[in-house]
Amino acid sequence: MAKRVNIGMVGYKFMGRTHSNAYRQVCRFFDCPVEPVMKAVCGRNRAGVTQAAEQLGWESVETNWRKLVARPDIDVIDISTGNNTHAPIAIAAAKAGKHIFCEKPLAMNVAEAKKMVAAVEKAGVKHMINFNYRGVPAVVLAKQMIAEGRLGQIYHWRGTYLQDWIVDPEFPLVWRLEKRLAGAGALGDIGAHSIDLARYLVGEITEVVADMKTFIEKRPKLADAAGGLAAAKRSKAKGRVTVDDAAIFLTRFDNGAMGTFEASRFAPGRRNYNTFEISGSKGSLRFCFEQMNELEYFDNTAPAEVQGFTKILVTDGTVHPYFGAWWPGGHIIGYEHTFVHMVYEFLKALRGRKNPKPDFYDGLRNQIVLEAVEKSAKSRRWVKISIG
Amino acid sequence: MAKRVNIGMVGYKFMGRTHSNAYRQVCRFFDCPVEPVMKAVCGRNRAGVTQAAEQLGWESVETNWRKLVARPDIDVIDISTGNNTHAPIAIAAAKAGKHIFCEKPLAMNVAEAKKMVAAVEKAGVKHMINFNYRGVPAVVLAKQMIAEGRLGQIYHWRGTYLQDWIVDPEFPLVWRLEKRLAGAGALGDIGAHSIDLARYLVGEITEVVADMKTFIEKRPKLADAAGGLAAAKRSKAKGRVTVDDAAIFLTRFDNGAMGTFEASRFAPGRRNYNTFEISGSKGSLRFCFEQMNELEYFDNTAPAEVQGFTKILVTDGTVHPYFGAWWPGGHIIGYEHTFVHMVYEFLKALRGRKNPKPDFYDGLRNQIVLEAVEKSAKSRRWVKISIG
Amino acid sequence: MAKRVNIGMVGYKFMGRTHSNAYRQVCRFFDCPVEPVMKAVCGRNRAGVTQAAEQLGWESVETNWRKLVARPDIDVIDISTGNNTHAPIAIAAAKAGKHIFCEKPLAMNVAEAKKMVAAVEKAGVKHMINFNYRGVPAVVLAKQMIAEGRLGQIYHWRGTYLQDWIVDPEFPLVWRLEKRLAGAGALGDIGAHSIDLARYLVGEITEVVADMKTFIEKRPKLADAAGGLAAAKRSKAKGRVTVDDAAIFLTRFDNGAMGTFEASRFAPGRRNYNTFEISGSKGSLRFCFEQMNELEYFDNTAPAEVQGFTKILVTDGTVHPYFGAWWPGGHIIGYEHTFVHMVYEFLKALRGRKNPKPDFYDGLRNQIVLEAVEKSAKSRRWVKISIG
Amino acid sequence: MAKRVNIGMVGYKFMGRTHSNAYRQVCRFFDCPVEPVMKAVCGRNRAGVTQAAEQLGWESVETNWRKLVARPDIDVIDISTGNNTHAPIAIAAAKAGKHIFCEKPLAMNVAEAKKMVAAVEKAGVKHMINFNYRGVPAVVLAKQMIAEGRLGQIYHWRGTYLQDWIVDPEFPLVWRLEKRLAGAGALGDIGAHSIDLARYLVGEITEVVADMKTFIEKRPKLADAAGGLAAAKRSKAKGRVTVDDAAIFLTRFDNGAMGTFEASRFAPGRRNYNTFEISGSKGSLRFCFEQMNELEYFDNTAPAEVQGFTKILVTDGTVHPYFGAWWPGGHIIGYEHTFVHMVYEFLKALRGRKNPKPDFYDGLRNQIVLEAVEKSAKSRRWVKISIG
Repeated sequence: MAKRVNIGMVGYKFMGRTHSNAYRQVCRFFDCPVEPVMKAVCGRNRAGVTQAAEQLGWESVETNWRKLVARPDIDVIDISTGNNTHAPIAIAAAKAGKHIFCEKPLAMNVAEAKKMVAAVEKAGVKHMINFNYRGVPAVVLAKQMIAEGRLGQIYHWRGTYLQDWIVDPEFPLVWRLEKRLAGAGALGDIGAHSIDLARYLVGEITEVVADMKTFIEKRPKLADAAGGLAAAKRSKAKGRVTVDDAAIFLTRFDNGAMGTFEASRFAPGRRNYNTFEISGSKGSLRFCFEQMNELEYFDNTAPAEVQGFTKILVTDGTVHPYFGAWWPGGHIIGYEHTFVHMVYEFLKALRGRKNPKPDFYDGLRNQIVLEAVEKSAKSRRWVKISIG
Repeated sequence: MAKRVNIGMVGYKFMGRTHSNAYRQVCRFFDCPVEPVMKAVCGRNRAGVTQAAEQLGWESVETNWRKLVARPDIDVIDISTGNNTHAPIAIAAAKAGKHIFCEKPLAMNVAEAKKMVAAVEKAGVKHMINFNYRGVPAVVLAKQMIAEGRLGQIYHWRGTYLQDWIVDPEFPLVWRLEKRLAGAGALGDIGAHSIDLARYLVGEITEVVADMKTFIEKRPKLADAAGGLAAAKRSKAKGRVTVDDAAIFLTRFDNGAMGTFEASRFAPGRRNYNTFEISGSKGSLRFCFEQMNELEYFDNTAPAEVQGFTKILVTDGTVHPYFGAWWPGGHIIGYEHTFVHMVYEFLKALRGRKNPKPDFYDGLRNQIVLEAVEKSAKSRRWVKISIG
Repeated sequence: MAKRVNIGMVGYKFMGRTHSNAYRQVCRFFDCPVEPVMKAVCGRNRAGVTQAAEQLGWESVETNWRKLVARPDIDVIDISTGNNTHAPIAIAAAKAGKHIFCEKPLAMNVAEAKKMVAAVEKAGVKHMINFNYRGVPAVVLAKQMIAEGRLGQIYHWRGTYLQDWIVDPEFPLVWRLEKRLAGAGALGDIGAHSIDLARYLVGEITEVVADMKTFIEKRPKLADAAGGLAAAKRSKAKGRVTVDDAAIFLTRFDNGAMGTFEASRFAPGRRNYNTFEISGSKGSLRFCFEQMNELEYFDNTAPAEVQGFTKILVTDGTVHPYFGAWWPGGHIIGYEHTFVHMVYEFLKALRGRKNPKPDFYDGLRNQIVLEAVEKSAKSRRWVKISIG
Repeated sequence: MAKRVNIGMVGYKFMGRTHSNAYRQVCRFFDCPVEPVMKAVCGRNRAGVTQAAEQLGWESVETNWRKLVARPDIDVIDISTGNNTHAPIAIAAAKAGKHIFCEKPLAMNVAEAKKMVAAVEKAGVKHMINFNYRGVPAVVLAKQMIAEGRLGQIYHWRGTYLQDWIVDPEFPLVWRLEKRLAGAGALGDIGAHSIDLARYLVGEITEVVADMKTFIEKRPKLADAAGGLAAAKRSKAKGRVTVDDAAIFLTRFDNGAMGTFEASRFAPGRRNYNTFEISGSKGSLRFCFEQMNELEYFDNTAPAEVQGFTKILVTDGTVHPYFGAWWPGGHIIGYEHTFVHMVYEFLKALRGRKNPKPDFYDGLRNQIVLEAVEKSAKSRRWVKISIG
């Protein structure tokens, strides 16, 4: 592997912006084993992608992802597109021998995800799925603390990922609300993150029972989304919302822990409320993304008189993950930094032998859980998940 | 109804202490319509009950509750005993024409609860069940705000009631861990409170799916509990825990809301963590008993730039429930005050025509939900609840 | 000392209610060395004091405190009156050989306070001043932690006591706003508590520099305060506010620590915001009365990766002060309990040889600091305080 | 003014890194009126500055700032050096007709600051001082709310800026602890930020009284700081700390408000605890940098039953300052973003007629307050500040 690696990114909207920033910033702060070159960005709309390339700092543009994938000067394909295109792009990229950095969720369904796994396995390329909350220093600290045994045997996982951006019934029918484009609703968009964190921190989920609901079944169609959502003309015609507004589920973990999950876009006041609380025999942890630089820790082995939840400000570069690359303690970082950390992990893996984590296997496993949740919500039964 | 009412209380342990305090204090702070006289307390152990009577301020003692119920000078029977005696005492009290103030849960099971309801209906006595968290000013404020429409249509209920007093596997096999004495474990003891709050604030539950677990299946037997738990001799022999350590469940409400519940005694750091969060179309509320004087409110109709969760310190006697009887704003109250408020409601009802709330119907309805949860945990299916 | 002690209380308003509750409750929860008998309450208005006696549970009434003090059946004089009567009552009580439980502030000024000290010294009676925040379990825990050396050398004290009940310029000219009745304003009413906590937890104050201000100089006179403030008729005439609305000051402590203080009634949203933060070489503590069951502790000797402020829920009766007498962990207590604890300390001292703490010496020392603050605010210079 | 502007930055350590990031990022997110070109970075150590240039993305290097200032291709001089070089660089830059973006504090003392103001006035160049906390969206929101009258008349300012990085007495004698290099200690380094925020949000300070202290008077000398502090060899020899460890002061504002300030590096657990609380007749605000995306607001005009401090998550790009350029609501930003916002304001001003804010006048005014604080601490008297 050369010291420089050329990135070709498909998609340039919200996720394209976060990925671009990560490529731009990572070697300014981290000691990069490989330097990413922002070679080409791809989008169907030439004007749009050209403007994005300039704004975000890409050297060239493509309007057809197949062309991008075919370019010999591209080493890595970054997939920042809508969910329904992840599979074809990833499979083609793998065939072309490109390493892949893919935005979550991996695919539209398990079948697609399996094909993607097969493709990267066959091609022998590196593959990573961007469950970016694994890039939060406080989350990595939680992982380390659990690995060190500070929580003992884990009894409970409580995960909520709550948002409120579609509570207004007049909010229009954007692509995230259409199953054919998004695959799933709150479940796949944000619940997938909760599931990944649970798998990362607690272990494999072996069984689920779920309920899902669409509170607002029809919404104004988007007549024209050019110029951003705020400027979009909304049609008087209404279209059907074909994904879930909220999903709640109970789980069992292979290590005996019990889990509760809630993913909802109908929780006023919760803007990006990705939280977890883990209870173990020796201690507990609580995290909320809206205060992402903090981790709350209860040490059940501490002297009783001073026990309590400790709010750790996870910003001490001498002991906390990733922070040494940034600022002195107490000078907090934000959302976009999680992407920088994920890209840093990806770059390290490009130089090493091991695949980065989380990878397409994690993406597939996540998809299996998502599908089990949906199946349970429909069948109204517990659904077992083979973790063979 | 006379201006004074004679109370006969059965049981004098934890709940006996809280009830005694309520009778002692209520008219010192509230303008009582009826004054309770602490006439007699009853317990099987004469020495124990005699000491309790002196400590707690009761005029006389009984060692047989049937005798107490039969006493003509007793107007009200207060049931503060173990769960397995609620039904026989209540039924006998009703037959004797006594009004009843009963600690929760109402009964050991639905069948018992139905008999209790039939008994009080037949006797025409007043009956109340002490779901004391309805006596928290912040909870009553929440109820008022919901009734005023400040939350709009309710989408979500999230209730947790977490404790940690039996996380240590060497904690002994106390009565609360034996089904024959307690009826249920975390579910019936603390989950019942969550269910009551959900019914009070959101509405009737129509369907549940649940999982329950006993993490520590055997514990040291209590050889001799005299002198309190700390002094109790623990046998080397172990006995089987026959109730749940934790119960998690999903619910549907008749108004379309979705619910998640968790009751656990295995959450280190959560001492009496009775919390709820309610999301509605116009706003949200959050409550945690450990900060019981506070209610968090998100007003989705406020100007966007100043939206956020408002931490209301529910201590303003000029506008907040019950507080006018206590202290100036900011001078907080505690756990025992909830019992004073419940007794105050009971006393008001004794003078009026209406039955106090919550009553035995609420106790029965609660028991039906508890039983559905248990049934679902066993059958591993959704269980419907008729709300006839 | 007999097993029972007869209390005679002067004053029956806000403080009279809190003291009455303490006498009524203390032996219901604590193992009392002496049992207080609520013998007589005294107030100038016969109708008022008679109603109060019934409401609060006193056996008899007096309308002249000199008569009360002279009664041979009275062992203890409780002074719950306005500040301008503390001195004469206390001095007379001491002369009559009564033990004294006096509400803070001790007196109107240092001169008065010195006479009171001389009187109790001469009489050899027990004397206590009710700086009730020393009765908060979390505060006592703080004291213990400091005594154990957990904070190391103390560098900083930050005390604020903020309220907001007179922010409205139309709030009337109550007695607390008149110097001849109250002695001082925010400084003496609430700042005195901060000073006491600083002395209790950090040490003696040796020097102060201060600023004081009255933001609203004229307020509506109270035409008739009968029936409580809400019902009071307010005159159109305005009267002059003769006390401070706010006082801020810097201090030096004899152990080298630096202090900042603020007492204000002009802090909207701060209802009874009595807070302190102490920084020491080995750790820090933070307390806020509005969450009085919590103490925040930063342990500077903990491993760096898990350092943070620990929110101790100070409700564990097995290890935390006073809580063993109340409820299981997590079942919080409130404002009035601090008075119960102070009375409990007083009762213990009545049976023992030592004087209770805090005592009139603490009251005098506090008054000296208050006077130094006022003097500094006027002279606009640092004022030294002899701690000889 | 051309569409591009060439930046020459002096200094490349902590502040150099934050400034570089700001220049790199600003036009990726904001619609820049002028695009900054990172033309040259200057430092005395050629190896060091060369490595920094590569790491941070500067086109060329200089080792003599006079050369940099003289370069015709440089439009803007960015001063990110130690405090003792701000004045000579700024004065030379002004003479050379360069616009200036200067890190705070402006100078070592008032005399220097006045010369700097005179120089930029004479040269007619744009000048800005980087009090970066004015770039926090929550702080700008606070400013807007105050300007709209939401707080009414302001009564109180409470500012603390607490850190804890030198609590350990073995922490070495770095440049920030030497008066000849840093000018001042906690006061000038962090207290200056508090003073700026107070001036920005409340108004001019007219009088101060202060106390300052150096808790640890001697510290290990740094034998060799190459390779960063952690790697630095510490001499056994000790050197004298010549700046303050902590400064506390009271102020009066020209609008009648009272202020308390504390700047300390001796507050264990407070990592970058830059907080303020403002109390006004109509409302209150509280901010803490460690949760910089939040602003707490108490609305004294809200209905009493729902009053409380509202925690505004200041991340809604449709209504909150700067956030529209970043991410969806709830996806928080961090410390470095404040510099991006300051640079954005600077760039806007380069294209406009007005000078950016805060400017050298603000820097001078700040320095005057700092000097008054120091003078007061020495003279132990109130010191008046002319705000002519």
